[in-house]
Amino acid sequence: MKKNWLVFFMFLSVVANAQKDLRPNIIVFLVDDMGVMDNSVPFCDSIMPLNKRFHTPNMEQMAREGMKFVNAYAQPVCTPSRVSMLTGMNAARTRVTSWTSPVKDDNTDVADSQFAPLDWNLNGLNPYESVPNMVNATPFPQLLKQAGYYTIHVGKAHWGSMGTPAASPYNMGFMVNISGHSGGHPQSYLSEQRYGNMPGKSQPQAVPDLEEYYDTGIFLTEALTREAIRAMETPIARNEPFYLNMAHYAVHLPIMADPRFVQKYYNAGLDSLEAQYASLIEGMDKSLGDIMKFLKEKKVENNTVIIFMSDNGGFDRRDKNINTHNAPFRSGKGSVYEGGIREPMIVKWPGMIASASINRSNVIIEDLFPTVLSIAGITRPKIIQKTDGVSLVPIFKNPQAILKDRLLIFHYPNKSASLKEEELLGINYYSALRYNNWKLLYRMRTQQFELYDLGKDIREVNNLAASHKTEVRRLAVLLGKALKDRNAQMPVSKATGKPVPFPDEIF
Amino acid sequence: MKKNWLVFFMFLSVVANAQKDLRPNIIVFLVDDMGVMDNSVPFCDSIMPLNKRFHTPNMEQMAREGMKFVNAYAQPVCTPSRVSMLTGMNAARTRVTSWTSPVKDDNTDVADSQFAPLDWNLNGLNPYESVPNMVNATPFPQLLKQAGYYTIHVGKAHWGSMGTPAASPYNMGFMVNISGHSGGHPQSYLSEQRYGNMPGKSQPQAVPDLEEYYDTGIFLTEALTREAIRAMETPIARNEPFYLNMAHYAVHLPIMADPRFVQKYYNAGLDSLEAQYASLIEGMDKSLGDIMKFLKEKKVENNTVIIFMSDNGGFDRRDKNINTHNAPFRSGKGSVYEGGIREPMIVKWPGMIASASINRSNVIIEDLFPTVLSIAGITRPKIIQKTDGVSLVPIFKNPQAILKDRLLIFHYPNKSASLKEEELLGINYYSALRYNNWKLLYRMRTQQFELYDLGKDIREVNNLAASHKTEVRRLAVLLGKALKDRNAQMPVSKATGKPVPFPDEIF
Repeated sequence: MKKNWLVFFMFLSVVANAQKDLRPNIIVFLVDDMGVMDNSVPFCDSIMPLNKRFHTPNMEQMAREGMKFVNAYAQPVCTPSRVSMLTGMNAARTRVTSWTSPVKDDNTDVADSQFAPLDWNLNGLNPYESVPNMVNATPFPQLLKQAGYYTIHVGKAHWGSMGTPAASPYNMGFMVNISGHSGGHPQSYLSEQRYGNMPGKSQPQAVPDLEEYYDTGIFLTEALTREAIRAMETPIARNEPFYLNMAHYAVHLPIMADPRFVQKYYNAGLDSLEAQYASLIEGMDKSLGDIMKFLKEKKVENNTVIIFMSDNGGFDRRDKNINTHNAPFRSGKGSVYEGGIREPMIVKWPGMIASASINRSNVIIEDLFPTVLSIAGITRPKIIQKTDGVSLVPIFKNPQAILKDRLLIFHYPNKSASLKEEELLGINYYSALRYNNWKLLYRMRTQQFELYDLGKDIREVNNLAASHKTEVRRLAVLLGKALKDRNAQMPVSKATGKPVPFPDEIF
Repeated sequence: MKKNWLVFFMFLSVVANAQKDLRPNIIVFLVDDMGVMDNSVPFCDSIMPLNKRFHTPNMEQMAREGMKFVNAYAQPVCTPSRVSMLTGMNAARTRVTSWTSPVKDDNTDVADSQFAPLDWNLNGLNPYESVPNMVNATPFPQLLKQAGYYTIHVGKAHWGSMGTPAASPYNMGFMVNISGHSGGHPQSYLSEQRYGNMPGKSQPQAVPDLEEYYDTGIFLTEALTREAIRAMETPIARNEPFYLNMAHYAVHLPIMADPRFVQKYYNAGLDSLEAQYASLIEGMDKSLGDIMKFLKEKKVENNTVIIFMSDNGGFDRRDKNINTHNAPFRSGKGSVYEGGIREPMIVKWPGMIASASINRSNVIIEDLFPTVLSIAGITRPKIIQKTDGVSLVPIFKNPQAILKDRLLIFHYPNKSASLKEEELLGINYYSALRYNNWKLLYRMRTQQFELYDLGKDIREVNNLAASHKTEVRRLAVLLGKALKDRNAQMPVSKATGKPVPFPDEIF
């Protein structure tokens, strides 16, 4: 009998271990409308003036402890990036190419004299069925939930419109939802204004779910952080792995002072609006710090991956100094120039990613789909869509590894604003390709190209299109084929009734 | 080795079983403001006219399959009942004796010429800390969550005010919250009115979280049902036991027609408002049916306990025919007469509760606290409050068992409405005791008693106080001691500055 008991106890020990789920926790810390320069971490090769303006000590700490991606991208506006992240599909493929309205069937595009209204997927993402004006795809939180992850969404969702499944994070596979809905920005950051929910005054952008914080003086960013921390306590107590979609409303308009931090920026002599903006940034950074501190206190820091990112470039038209807020990068939110698509991205994974490492690969927001699934050990997900993202897990382990010859596709066949300067800003009716150090822009309105060598000209001021016609043609073919492969939409001319030719078709 | 392998495989089998959590799922299906007569299940000894007016086939089915409680009670208004249910404390003890305002520190009591404003716990339930005007207690969903239950809240919460933890079901231990907040009724039942969330029109009672259903024509009751069903899918898929707090906003004011059912009642010749009310009832009943059907489809029906209840009596002043809407019971919501406190209660627990059984015990809403915990196998909960409820599990198993000599305490030292008829209706400044078949009312305003023998006089028309003075005195002592034991509040006279004496103190 003695031997039997030995086996028995050995088995007991196996069972006890099996009950502790060792899969890593995953946090995507997604900021809204934050530009790549809106922080004190240098994402360029040297420290730039804007890096000195902003104070983000917790991002600095994260960069010291993890890997900084200095060529990370998203789409020029938020909903396309957010839907790409959840589905792994490029925006050209989702056809969710601009931001969705809270109101169903409401095209947010501005009317244009040259092009007819585009019939894009303006209601957003539908995980359940294929219906007009929505992309039908399996979002990764659904897969994580099925695999036993505890899935939490906190903050801005903005995957589509009211009256559709896109309006509720529960439909994306989240088990907990705090403040996510169809709204793309907060009506207010202030508890005194109940985040927009004042009787008789609230608009579709009033932030839901935070009644506990009304009139407490707690800024929106802080309220969301506290809710996220509270929500993480449950899976930690249960030894279940969790996924947290920490999607701040900050730093989107309306720019409002975070009272905890703004005085410092007034004192530094910043313009009033810019001081308020900087306070929004520092409030967001404090949230990152609070979450990292919480993970440490709970002793799960070493088994938690944090991916920091933003969903598009910094909004560059907040005052008259356009083309300066993402300097040295050109333009801002809405643009396919670097200022509109380049993102601050840092990944921390203790034991797996070397501290203070830098990776120069060209990566894009849809890469988060296979990356998150790979971290969770889901290698063959059952999904209905064709994806474009690639897992970054292999390059996490090797900072020198470069994803070579990747085609990063940016596609905006929409019109976001009536602007005289749209050509200067790279806004409305543009596609773009980043391929190694090359950057090709295709302006649909005029069917003209611009070509930049980002290895030498990160400001995109030296257009090489006229002098490098062979290169333009080669890249135009790559871009055109990629767009067609993704079944991309092109705007249709009112005059001819024909769509704009794909970039490879105009030679 | 052969024997070792036998042990090994035996153990494997034990492990496999252990991984399937066999604790029962629990659903409390709590209707708002539904009177005991607002359905087609007879809770009196015979079928009453109102039982013929309403159509609730799914309640009938539940009664056929479970146990009907014909002497079930709650407090006269909603927040006290809801807080008692979550904490196991009688309302006299919680000092949450009337409904809470969505606005913090806002006393919903009406001013009175005789009594000073009462300093009750008007902000509701605080699970975290002891602060003024809130009761500090451990809600049972918190205990269920800690024990590994998947806890879901859907619908009306109303445990307290905005700006306090009471405003969020997450603070009560719920992992999922859909539409629960500080509001005590829906601004609208209609998707076309976005359940109240119309831009520029929404009030604190606008129902949160249902943007997916806006403008879809889906009635509030149906939307909540679909969300509840969706939420239950997760724990069922994971083999985790769940608790669902299915707390409908129906059938509270504003009375609005559920378009799926209202025509039938118009055709039956009902007054317009009553037809609409009956449609609200039948929509609620359809929800019950949908949930039971879902449990059956998922093959968890036999391991799921459903407790059906309401939180106070039917609102009796919805038109001029007061004292008729809960007939044969006297008065309605707000009153300590039977019409204000008697509840429809049915419990279904396949294999544990005999079908079509009836239990005559006097039970009250705080009994749900120990009952739910007992069903979940939590026998020694770690809680901070002293409780008053008793577990009903022992009597589930025996329909004939009677909880004898229980003191059911109703306490309303508040003023809910300016009414000339307050004495007739038993509203404002009343305490009451049910003790076996006796019912004692204590009117604080006049310090007078009423005594009824409910065994013979269910309508409470034959006041025996004058003829049964010894009985009045005996019961007044029981009521007075119970109130003092619960540290109950009494209103304070403006003239004398002294509180109304407890019932045992006036002899």
